[in-house]
Amino acid sequence: MAQINPTVGSIAGNAKAILEWTEEARGRGCDLVLFPELSLTGYPPEDLLLKPKFIGDNLEALDRLSSKIKGITAVIGFVDRKADIFNAAAIIHNGEVAGVYHKMYLPNYGVFDEQRYFQAGTEALNFVLNGVTLGIEICEDIWYPEGPARVQSLGGAEVIVNINASPFHMGKSLVREEMLATRANDNAVIIAYNNTVGGQDELVFDGGGLIIDPSGAVIARGRAFEEDLIVADLDIDAVSTVRLKDPRRREAKLKTRLDGLREIVLPKTKGKKAARPKMSPLKQVAGTLGPAEEVLKALVLGTRDYVRKNGFAHVVVGLSGGIDSSLVAAVAVSALGPESITGVAMPSQFTSKESSEDAKALAKNLGIKLLTIPIKDTFMEYLRTLKGAFKGRPEDATEENMQARIRGNILMALSNKFGWLVLTTGNKSEMSVGYATLYGDMAGGFAVIKDVPKTLVYRVAERVNEEAGRAVIPKRVLIKAPTAELKFNQTDQDTLPPYEILDKVLKAYVEEDKSVDEIVSMGFKRPLVRKVVRMVDASEYKRRQAPPGIKITPRALGKDRRMPITNGYSNE
Amino acid sequence: MAQINPTVGSIAGNAKAILEWTEEARGRGCDLVLFPELSLTGYPPEDLLLKPKFIGDNLEALDRLSSKIKGITAVIGFVDRKADIFNAAAIIHNGEVAGVYHKMYLPNYGVFDEQRYFQAGTEALNFVLNGVTLGIEICEDIWYPEGPARVQSLGGAEVIVNINASPFHMGKSLVREEMLATRANDNAVIIAYNNTVGGQDELVFDGGGLIIDPSGAVIARGRAFEEDLIVADLDIDAVSTVRLKDPRRREAKLKTRLDGLREIVLPKTKGKKAARPKMSPLKQVAGTLGPAEEVLKALVLGTRDYVRKNGFAHVVVGLSGGIDSSLVAAVAVSALGPESITGVAMPSQFTSKESSEDAKALAKNLGIKLLTIPIKDTFMEYLRTLKGAFKGRPEDATEENMQARIRGNILMALSNKFGWLVLTTGNKSEMSVGYATLYGDMAGGFAVIKDVPKTLVYRVAERVNEEAGRAVIPKRVLIKAPTAELKFNQTDQDTLPPYEILDKVLKAYVEEDKSVDEIVSMGFKRPLVRKVVRMVDASEYKRRQAPPGIKITPRALGKDRRMPITNGYSNE
Repeated sequence: MAQINPTVGSIAGNAKAILEWTEEARGRGCDLVLFPELSLTGYPPEDLLLKPKFIGDNLEALDRLSSKIKGITAVIGFVDRKADIFNAAAIIHNGEVAGVYHKMYLPNYGVFDEQRYFQAGTEALNFVLNGVTLGIEICEDIWYPEGPARVQSLGGAEVIVNINASPFHMGKSLVREEMLATRANDNAVIIAYNNTVGGQDELVFDGGGLIIDPSGAVIARGRAFEEDLIVADLDIDAVSTVRLKDPRRREAKLKTRLDGLREIVLPKTKGKKAARPKMSPLKQVAGTLGPAEEVLKALVLGTRDYVRKNGFAHVVVGLSGGIDSSLVAAVAVSALGPESITGVAMPSQFTSKESSEDAKALAKNLGIKLLTIPIKDTFMEYLRTLKGAFKGRPEDATEENMQARIRGNILMALSNKFGWLVLTTGNKSEMSVGYATLYGDMAGGFAVIKDVPKTLVYRVAERVNEEAGRAVIPKRVLIKAPTAELKFNQTDQDTLPPYEILDKVLKAYVEEDKSVDEIVSMGFKRPLVRKVVRMVDASEYKRRQAPPGIKITPRALGKDRRMPITNGYSNE
Repeated sequence: MAQINPTVGSIAGNAKAILEWTEEARGRGCDLVLFPELSLTGYPPEDLLLKPKFIGDNLEALDRLSSKIKGITAVIGFVDRKADIFNAAAIIHNGEVAGVYHKMYLPNYGVFDEQRYFQAGTEALNFVLNGVTLGIEICEDIWYPEGPARVQSLGGAEVIVNINASPFHMGKSLVREEMLATRANDNAVIIAYNNTVGGQDELVFDGGGLIIDPSGAVIARGRAFEEDLIVADLDIDAVSTVRLKDPRRREAKLKTRLDGLREIVLPKTKGKKAARPKMSPLKQVAGTLGPAEEVLKALVLGTRDYVRKNGFAHVVVGLSGGIDSSLVAAVAVSALGPESITGVAMPSQFTSKESSEDAKALAKNLGIKLLTIPIKDTFMEYLRTLKGAFKGRPEDATEENMQARIRGNILMALSNKFGWLVLTTGNKSEMSVGYATLYGDMAGGFAVIKDVPKTLVYRVAERVNEEAGRAVIPKRVLIKAPTAELKFNQTDQDTLPPYEILDKVLKAYVEEDKSVDEIVSMGFKRPLVRKVVRMVDASEYKRRQAPPGIKITPRALGKDRRMPITNGYSNE
């Protein structure tokens, strides 16, 4: 299983990678190599799929690629075009496309829009390679007990190969593994589950491919958040032994043909091949990645791929001396190396000595360059300019937002002048309640921790220090009270409930669609819940203009959650 | 047909409106009144549909509403919940829900995401009211020749009632009317097509309900872009006469039941009713709304509803003296009245005398207040602040963007201080090629002309003056060369091709998914086409952070067009 990192739209680049990994697999004696779902186009191609030329380019690339693949059979994800387009898998054998499977279950929820583009396939497909029967599937197909695996295994498949582009969220890999173990066991098959890896806008694909035997045990496991070639020699005889005991299968054997199942028998493989591979040892034991660890890895990979795949060489981060910007800078350093990051401190009259010290200490610990650009004079100039218009009006949040927007302008000016990408530093708790300034601290190209609740920000920051074996993020940053420092003696908790409470209420409301009554019954005070709900509902317009960020929860604030702005519904 | 303007989420408010309009129809002697698709929840409710309480609230409201409806039968769009949720129409008769139809064709393209939420219905439904058989349908159902209308009419339906939330784009009303005439004729039925009206975020529903006889002729027509009660007395005998000649129908009559069709016979209507209504005269003749006229109406309604439904009383617009901001201010005045708009002139050292004069003349002509807030000193202060960071670097677009962002900050400061909504003024040509400053002129809550190409901006602006009978938008604004005035002697055409060419290339590329080769073969120079395509592709990240704007073309820049930002595909 080639767990590769394609780039959406880079058909030629992806084809080249597929060929290289195919050669590597052939060199290691493999009979079959799997590539991820839509590996030729990258996933998800979104509205590129509406361009006829894009589909044509992908078909031409598949043809060219097929002619070069010999001595090994390859399963490659691509877009097929008949009367409509299909999310498809090609079986490449002896230099040509020997069979094509069309995905039958098209996800159209959460971040997925597959029914916007694809027609669903109507036929399951088995193929016979060297006497072994393999069922072919794509991603969502395997999540349903009534899916193609049933008819495939009844039809004789000893192995199900399932190719995926399954995006990460916290804890998902365990759910996935349990589901696959159940499916393998229920159908008495080996399942080879190959996942893509890499970042694509809001999504991170975490790899972690699995080969699972009919007892539900893991035979091989791919690296998490990294490319990998997962090589295993499968014990097909063991499958037969299990099956001899299963009366359903004897019955199925009697039928000449199962409804909705097609079978292709591949001819003998031509071309040179190395000796039979040894099964690779398990590369990771299940459950070793803790929540903070897997989130940190997802943030690093998501950031690296967004920056690199969009052609940036350098990023810039505003450093306030607070926990959010400290974590974002640390993630960026892990993703890109310290020489690719510039930190910018932008102190005002409200910036404490501690904050300035902490920003400096962080930059030093990370080994990144720090610019200091004070904003006080510019702020004063704005106030002078607006004096007439604001006459007779008291100071309020306007003046706070103005400071945040000056900082946003300065970062964007640096971005424009030097071609740097601005990373924003807002966390999910802030983004949910709108405790952020549109065009201010929200200004930038990529919002690294947009889906990380504040309480988790602390845990991931601690993880950064654990992995480094030292306080890269200064200890004081981890313990001081969070503040926006947009006026004197301000703290977040002047406006917001304590984050331990806020994050639980937000999870229930934003991720779980619970009502106010239900959240109150969880043990929270009604006025607090109503206040939080009102803040979330009132800040939809801000989120609509926020930069994309990395999904790490079951429901992120992006294409995962599509709320109307104009909305008369009172959730209170 | 009650062509009403619901608000998404305002279940109680929508129910109240439905009851009032029902009483009005009953008072005018109608047997049956239709409300639009999802009239109880507003359309589209988007992810509100994922909240179980929202669905429950809508079901409770339907029950309460039903008990109040007597003396008339009503068809009301709502969300039904069985094992899954359905886009549904309730037939309310004698104070209760006498039947429910589930939409069978769920659009999931363009701006539509119905398969994200709803299960598709599997059964067509006829109901018999006072001896007349009516087929009930929802929106998309009528667009397919093989849709439920066929089985409904074969099953005896003399009238098809179709309730809609069909969003506007230029020229769509004619396409719709032709389709309905064909469908009525093919099935030998009267079609009563009721559409919603009003603005919802990016969408404007244009009303314009139609009743069409079996010959394809329009019997009644609702107002465009306004609420309306369309009253008509239908000649059912004429339908029978047509049908006697049709052999298909004789055959159908022989069958006791048609597959996939259910029929409900309603008991006698209880309650008081006025005398039989007179058929209303045709309110508009087809084709009277020219392109500029219908676009102007859509912009006015879309702006009014976005502002009002989001609870704003006042808007603010930056006035440059150019055509875009002039049109936006004029639309806002038509939508909200002059007392609800403040214009802001923000001159710099690059602002010409003519621009300042034109902004002043426009404000005077529109009768709106004009603030003048110069930005030069603030700009100079930024330059001083960034002098060190920018050392040794020549001036470039950075300094231009800084000016735009200062203006954005000033408008947002006024918004924050006074609770005004900022209207942005960028047109579709600019937004497509990224000729706009993120957080600068793109900063604001609603982008009125975001989907209006520059060449059309001129035509709509001329229409404003025609309707006013005087040059509300000063003549010079309509003829001078467009310029961003961010440096001396700048014009848009320094950077962009002439708009007459640009807009044609953009339509082919953005709206029609044509390839570079195809556009070149239309008669444009390859280097120009490649340049435009490159600009569009490179500015996806800006559009992702743009405020919503009103869709007026077949493909708008919003949820209508979902391109990846990270995108290695070379369209060149």
